[in-house]
Amino acid sequence: MTDALIYLDPDSKLSLQDQIRQKLVDAILHGIFPKGSRLPSSRKLAGQLGVARNTVVLAYELLIDEGYLESRERSGVFVTDSILEGRIGFSGKPSGSERPGKRWRNRIRNHVEPPSEFQWPADWQQHPFPFIDGYFDSSLYPTAQWREASRLALGARVIHEGTVTEGHADDPALIEEIRTKMLPRRGINAEPNEILITMGEQNALFLVTQLLASPASRVAMEEPGNPRMRQLLRQTDAEVVYQPVDEFGMVINSGLRQAQLIYVTPSHQVPTAVTMPNQRRRGLLKQAVQSDQLIIEDDFEHESNYLGQPHPALRGMDESDRVIYISALPKVLAPGLRIGFIVAAPEFIREARKLRQMVIGRPSLIHQRTAAFFLSLGHYDSFMARLHKIMGERWDALRQALNHYHRGSEIDFPTQGGTALWVESPEHVKVDTLVSEAAKRGILIEPDTHYFASGHASRNHYRMGVTSIPVEQIREGVSRLERLIRGLTADQIETLDPADPNLLSGDQLRRLLPGATIIYKTYYGAPCTIELRQDGSMIGRSGHANEDCDAGHWWVEDDLYCRKWKKWSYGEEGRYQVTLDGNHIRWWRPGGRLVDSAIIQPAESDLAS
Amino acid sequence: MTDALIYLDPDSKLSLQDQIRQKLVDAILHGIFPKGSRLPSSRKLAGQLGVARNTVVLAYELLIDEGYLESRERSGVFVTDSILEGRIGFSGKPSGSERPGKRWRNRIRNHVEPPSEFQWPADWQQHPFPFIDGYFDSSLYPTAQWREASRLALGARVIHEGTVTEGHADDPALIEEIRTKMLPRRGINAEPNEILITMGEQNALFLVTQLLASPASRVAMEEPGNPRMRQLLRQTDAEVVYQPVDEFGMVINSGLRQAQLIYVTPSHQVPTAVTMPNQRRRGLLKQAVQSDQLIIEDDFEHESNYLGQPHPALRGMDESDRVIYISALPKVLAPGLRIGFIVAAPEFIREARKLRQMVIGRPSLIHQRTAAFFLSLGHYDSFMARLHKIMGERWDALRQALNHYHRGSEIDFPTQGGTALWVESPEHVKVDTLVSEAAKRGILIEPDTHYFASGHASRNHYRMGVTSIPVEQIREGVSRLERLIRGLTADQIETLDPADPNLLSGDQLRRLLPGATIIYKTYYGAPCTIELRQDGSMIGRSGHANEDCDAGHWWVEDDLYCRKWKKWSYGEEGRYQVTLDGNHIRWWRPGGRLVDSAIIQPAESDLAS
Repeated sequence: MTDALIYLDPDSKLSLQDQIRQKLVDAILHGIFPKGSRLPSSRKLAGQLGVARNTVVLAYELLIDEGYLESRERSGVFVTDSILEGRIGFSGKPSGSERPGKRWRNRIRNHVEPPSEFQWPADWQQHPFPFIDGYFDSSLYPTAQWREASRLALGARVIHEGTVTEGHADDPALIEEIRTKMLPRRGINAEPNEILITMGEQNALFLVTQLLASPASRVAMEEPGNPRMRQLLRQTDAEVVYQPVDEFGMVINSGLRQAQLIYVTPSHQVPTAVTMPNQRRRGLLKQAVQSDQLIIEDDFEHESNYLGQPHPALRGMDESDRVIYISALPKVLAPGLRIGFIVAAPEFIREARKLRQMVIGRPSLIHQRTAAFFLSLGHYDSFMARLHKIMGERWDALRQALNHYHRGSEIDFPTQGGTALWVESPEHVKVDTLVSEAAKRGILIEPDTHYFASGHASRNHYRMGVTSIPVEQIREGVSRLERLIRGLTADQIETLDPADPNLLSGDQLRRLLPGATIIYKTYYGAPCTIELRQDGSMIGRSGHANEDCDAGHWWVEDDLYCRKWKKWSYGEEGRYQVTLDGNHIRWWRPGGRLVDSAIIQPAESDLAS
Repeated sequence: MTDALIYLDPDSKLSLQDQIRQKLVDAILHGIFPKGSRLPSSRKLAGQLGVARNTVVLAYELLIDEGYLESRERSGVFVTDSILEGRIGFSGKPSGSERPGKRWRNRIRNHVEPPSEFQWPADWQQHPFPFIDGYFDSSLYPTAQWREASRLALGARVIHEGTVTEGHADDPALIEEIRTKMLPRRGINAEPNEILITMGEQNALFLVTQLLASPASRVAMEEPGNPRMRQLLRQTDAEVVYQPVDEFGMVINSGLRQAQLIYVTPSHQVPTAVTMPNQRRRGLLKQAVQSDQLIIEDDFEHESNYLGQPHPALRGMDESDRVIYISALPKVLAPGLRIGFIVAAPEFIREARKLRQMVIGRPSLIHQRTAAFFLSLGHYDSFMARLHKIMGERWDALRQALNHYHRGSEIDFPTQGGTALWVESPEHVKVDTLVSEAAKRGILIEPDTHYFASGHASRNHYRMGVTSIPVEQIREGVSRLERLIRGLTADQIETLDPADPNLLSGDQLRRLLPGATIIYKTYYGAPCTIELRQDGSMIGRSGHANEDCDAGHWWVEDDLYCRKWKKWSYGEEGRYQVTLDGNHIRWWRPGGRLVDSAIIQPAESDLAS
């Protein structure tokens, strides 16, 4: 601390003693000499500054008088303990009384437009229901395995900085692991000179847009789409064409043909998480050939399909070398890990490497080698299998809960996987209101706002992610969110009119239900049929191939239709009032709101009668 | 491995079986199925691909016939061990026979000019005399201390990614450590909102130039100067004014006044390592105020002054907030460490933070916290003291060796510290020739070429660094380099003419030398006097304040002047023939080349006589 430099200006109008005094006060108030700390002896300081000792002694004495310092017998001069009291929040600038803030507005030649990013609250971990996508609870990190890989990498002397090959090459061991372990899972064959390591995803996107986009180019991206890409494109002054997104991802239409460059997230569209089917992928590639376009394929979320097989990457289907593929090692491998990569034609990789060198230098070879060891020891495969299982369970729990609590509506972007769902907000509830009211109740959901280019409409979705919420919390979170929505839409909720002439009595129910089949759709748009058997048992079949089945029993009690599944509806008993209008059946909480509606087919015996 | 995706194109002209065969061959030749590895069973692969099992069976059989695969009884189908023999160097592109390399030249909108950087050979550690600046021998790393800090940071759950404050803030603990421990050593007071962490030095330079330089701006930098800065400025299309460098660093002249932005390396100029004195620093700041200029102060090498006190940074003397200060944690703290920082006005830091977010995201908070712990545990101070000592010894050894072996010449850029020396190449020896011939002899020195803007002259220096060479190797390395230079300049070396009439005999020496004083300059331009006493002892004094003294004895033997110092000239005996021309004395290796020359003042008794 006593090494702190005090600079004395010979041209200053202040005396040496005053200058010393001023600098010491600055240092004390800025915590450079903390309270209670000992100052250098006057002899030592005088020697350092090249001034007479008496000059320092006088400066010290004045500061003692002013209460900044105190002299303790036989031990020296100390900063008083009380000096900073009542000064919390001090922020005066020590040197530089003239502070021309306006100067900077003109001086800065290249202003960066603020990203339209959404910020989770800093204390998100304090929220019981964080439906966040992209942060991970720390329990997931494979700490021991990563530490082992790190230890091995540090031991590998051959890769201490600057020891590997020339030309800013990456660690050949990591390139080889990515090439032979990660890329084949995506259907991609790549040579080492087709791969470049980047400082995570953001850096990969930056390098690619810097190289390919300019004010003269037209670039297509999805709408809604990745806000970070939108910001990067805006910064290049390229013309951006916003392509609509449907349940199969980016729509291919005549507008797309006008672009020279297409940014697309086929494996799980950002933000809806829908997967582009192979047929549309082929169509996209064909059009790229016809219109001589390049494609940036953003594949960061590729590993997480829970329904069905993952699709191969566009780059794996690309016969004409037009696809620039970007991906990353999952952030959850190690805290602070930032390893992304680009796979593209060698000519492109060569240019990207030069730009990377200018922007950040080479990503640390030690970190690269650590990742290489992690992969080569087989940790990656086993960790990803474990992560896939955990995320799959969470994703499934979220789907179940939405299907249970959001009865009567249907999702418009059904997904096969990913770590988030894109949920429609109820009519007349502003997404921003819902998000902020939910946060007050400990429920964190993401508004859709920042996924849309400014001026674009359609802001009625929110996003629920599962990377950071334990599976046990999911049902309760969705249930509370539903309760909040009910409160916000209370005036629109349909409730049972006690005088409804279609209301069925216990006797009517006992005549209608035995042997009847109830037909409706799940929240995910899949058909669902329920057979209410004569013997009081029931069978439910759901899904396009009846892949989800359950059994249970039903009965009538006090004019109420009651039922209990083995696993559906969490195996809990339900008791409902029922109205019938033609073959349209609706069931209600007793004396309360509508739960769901369906078509009912009475028992065949009834039909026969 | 069996998860490798094989994508079958329904529109392909090839049959499914042929496609499978082709993809398998690709995968084998690219090492995705290594030799000896087991392939998935035909049943499993058929299931994955959704084809008839027989299709796969037939594909396998053909590949067995072709020698790619072999069937082992009861265990399955394997890649044959011999398949890759004779195929080393295979690099066919599996998919994509059409590879339009030319496309990329037109597609890439923003070409990066190749940096004029010099590359050390990849195997530099195999060279016995690596006079490199910037790489460190791995023995220097404080591995145990860094590991401790890393362990503490990983335990600090509060900083798992995304948990700290909003707005892409850096780790407040690291900011505080830099603010209170590192900056005061440089004479800088800074508030937390005046500091931004970057991904190392290169990234800091990139952010600053991107924000401040544009095609409309004129930027001054030193010549010779930092090649990375030159490349960055070229990329912004700014007009660059090259300022000459003298022994006090960047020259302040009228040309400098034309610039809006000045890039300068005052603590140790890159590449000459000279230090700018305080007076010139004040002049620079004054002119910046007068001409309303901003200054980028690059202070990466600040910690290494061995002669005299370090000077405070420009930023610490800056009363008008015009200096943008950039520095970094020393790379030698941890392998792969990339922590740089910018200190500037809050308005500037705010813009730089936005740009940083776009380019790389936020530098890992875990790495930031690790560095914070390293600093707060006091490891930084003690490590830097140790490093300072080691580097000081090496630097001193290099100076001594140059003074000893490069006798008769004088360095034109005397330095006070740093980790490199800027040495003039002998006349008629091309620097590039010297560098490559030296490398053949295990001596690595850096040519000056890449430090000059293209088209600029004055390429007759080389650079010798000490960060990577053990102190014991320095003398031998310099000695061998000198021998090489002698070889290259053999035709210009002055050798003694045996018939030289000025050659002194033993008797003449015995009359001239006793009581005489020899006066000359060291390699570093400092005066040096040697008193040859009557009693055979001698005293040497060197330096502007006679700070370097030594004693020894001298005698005359066989027409030779002989001498031996206690520590100068490594305490080794020297034996020379001597010529005298007026008061100009020269000494020669017996029968050989000139060693050095000086002025001699005979003993006062002689003068009196």
